[in-house]
Amino acid sequence: MKNIVTIGGGSGQFILLSGLRDVENISIKAIVSMVDSGGSTGRLRDELGVLPPGDILKCLLALSTGREYARKILQKRFVCDNRLNGHNAGNMLLSILSQYAGNFPDGVRALGEVLSIKGEVLPVTVDKATLVAELTDGGYLFGESVIDVPRGNTRGKIKKTYLVPHHAETVKVHPPVLKAIKNANYIVVGPGDLFSSIIPNFLVDGVKNEIKKTRAKIIYVLNIMTKFGETDNYWGEDFVYDLEKAMGRKVDYVIVNSGIIDKDVLKPYKKQKAELVKMHRDKSWNGRTVIREDIVNFSGGVIRHDEDKLAEIIKRII
Amino acid sequence: MKNIVTIGGGSGQFILLSGLRDVENISIKAIVSMVDSGGSTGRLRDELGVLPPGDILKCLLALSTGREYARKILQKRFVCDNRLNGHNAGNMLLSILSQYAGNFPDGVRALGEVLSIKGEVLPVTVDKATLVAELTDGGYLFGESVIDVPRGNTRGKIKKTYLVPHHAETVKVHPPVLKAIKNANYIVVGPGDLFSSIIPNFLVDGVKNEIKKTRAKIIYVLNIMTKFGETDNYWGEDFVYDLEKAMGRKVDYVIVNSGIIDKDVLKPYKKQKAELVKMHRDKSWNGRTVIREDIVNFSGGVIRHDEDKLAEIIKRII
Repeated sequence: MKNIVTIGGGSGQFILLSGLRDVENISIKAIVSMVDSGGSTGRLRDELGVLPPGDILKCLLALSTGREYARKILQKRFVCDNRLNGHNAGNMLLSILSQYAGNFPDGVRALGEVLSIKGEVLPVTVDKATLVAELTDGGYLFGESVIDVPRGNTRGKIKKTYLVPHHAETVKVHPPVLKAIKNANYIVVGPGDLFSSIIPNFLVDGVKNEIKKTRAKIIYVLNIMTKFGETDNYWGEDFVYDLEKAMGRKVDYVIVNSGIIDKDVLKPYKKQKAELVKMHRDKSWNGRTVIREDIVNFSGGVIRHDEDKLAEIIKRII
Repeated sequence: MKNIVTIGGGSGQFILLSGLRDVENISIKAIVSMVDSGGSTGRLRDELGVLPPGDILKCLLALSTGREYARKILQKRFVCDNRLNGHNAGNMLLSILSQYAGNFPDGVRALGEVLSIKGEVLPVTVDKATLVAELTDGGYLFGESVIDVPRGNTRGKIKKTYLVPHHAETVKVHPPVLKAIKNANYIVVGPGDLFSSIIPNFLVDGVKNEIKKTRAKIIYVLNIMTKFGETDNYWGEDFVYDLEKAMGRKVDYVIVNSGIIDKDVLKPYKKQKAELVKMHRDKSWNGRTVIREDIVNFSGGVIRHDEDKLAEIIKRII
């Protein structure tokens, strides 16, 4: 039994965990950043004062043995003329389970039980916080959903990010997260937006320190496309450097896409100034192993990682 | 297209609606009593101040096109060491949807949308109320869950029941209920506990009056067993008389079970002093049609109505 920890947030982690769910002889612990502030999740944070449910829900669904039907019920968006419009049942359910149980991790655990998940989903922190980005032009961006909007030309580049706690003096790590990192054999970071989904995990007090100490090998799954305003003009190497700086240690494996994408599918991405992530280095790069393979899935016209291809590579590594 | 209205509450209505879901060319409106005060539902009423979610949830699930998998998620009970223990996700979800939407019917409608239900589920009232039973020994029982406990010997028989509103001056009908009764071609009453599930619907202000006026034919599905303390020693005729008194009009059809039940299955029921419901009258009884057929299902050792057998008879009538 190998202990696998995943670190991320958002849709990237959904795909990664979807593939890992059916890998045998592994124990999965998914660590999720708690700064999502957009859409339904953002509204629930504001209105109910809960921790962000959206990314946690995605991870729980990915690991659910009844994923296909659970998604139909819990991710279907309400279309109605009252406040529920735009929300989904899963976010609402996770919010009340947490409120009623008295704390967020108990709510997450209860929903995991209902969904018969394989593994465990852990919020990186249970302290409410806002993600702040300091820009090269001296400006600041407040909140993940603001940082997440692609508008590179109208603002400076991200120089630095940090978490600002809402109530406590620091943003403390949820203790089981440290234990998971300590006992991990492999830690899979990404895929996901570097500054708004991945790095916020390492900004939580105590995480970076535990990452430095663990003997686990770190596998970084690179994004397939850059994101304008966040990682424009980034090469694979730039992603790796920024991540390593945030983690305080080197990665052991980098997985980069080599699959060819149809030009028609790339068109709308080009309009948003998103580019394919390229990488100079190959195979062995100063102690890191670079795995260059087809990991893309663009059926349906959307470029994303392919859950099966990703799981296959990770199976081979571990 | 025939308009079918069902009136009841509890598990009996779940079975009836499960069978009716797949009948073609009918429009279903399920009217549900709002006095359930036991178990998870009772706790949520007390703690969150919501209307009782349990029976509504059962009806929504029965009518869901994804019933089999929806039940797995929404009816699974939490087993944990916090307040969630004993609740299920469906009751919690319906509670937050109603609270967040601002009213109970909007919450019910939203959950119905998520579950892709066929038909509509209508709470008979949105006024909170307690069911009161006046006993022959001069005593009173307060609350459906108290009335529901079989303990015939230790208390008088039920003489009369009424609803006591919590806040308003009367317990007012939810207006779409009147419209449904008015436009119905057939109204199916039961199966269900006579005093704690069925009659409470007719105690709501305005319902009895609309039942008297409607041209709909009324089909009464008799219980298979009597209930000690509620309907002990009742024959089919007694059920019919009490229901007719509560409705203010005669029923048109009575469906009574003629199926034989294994002695081994009956044993635990005998211990609880529950008896098979028998009926003297047959075929035609003062303008009522008595349908005597095998409608029982006791696979698994529990005596209940069979959804397919029931639906077949109702299809024949309409």
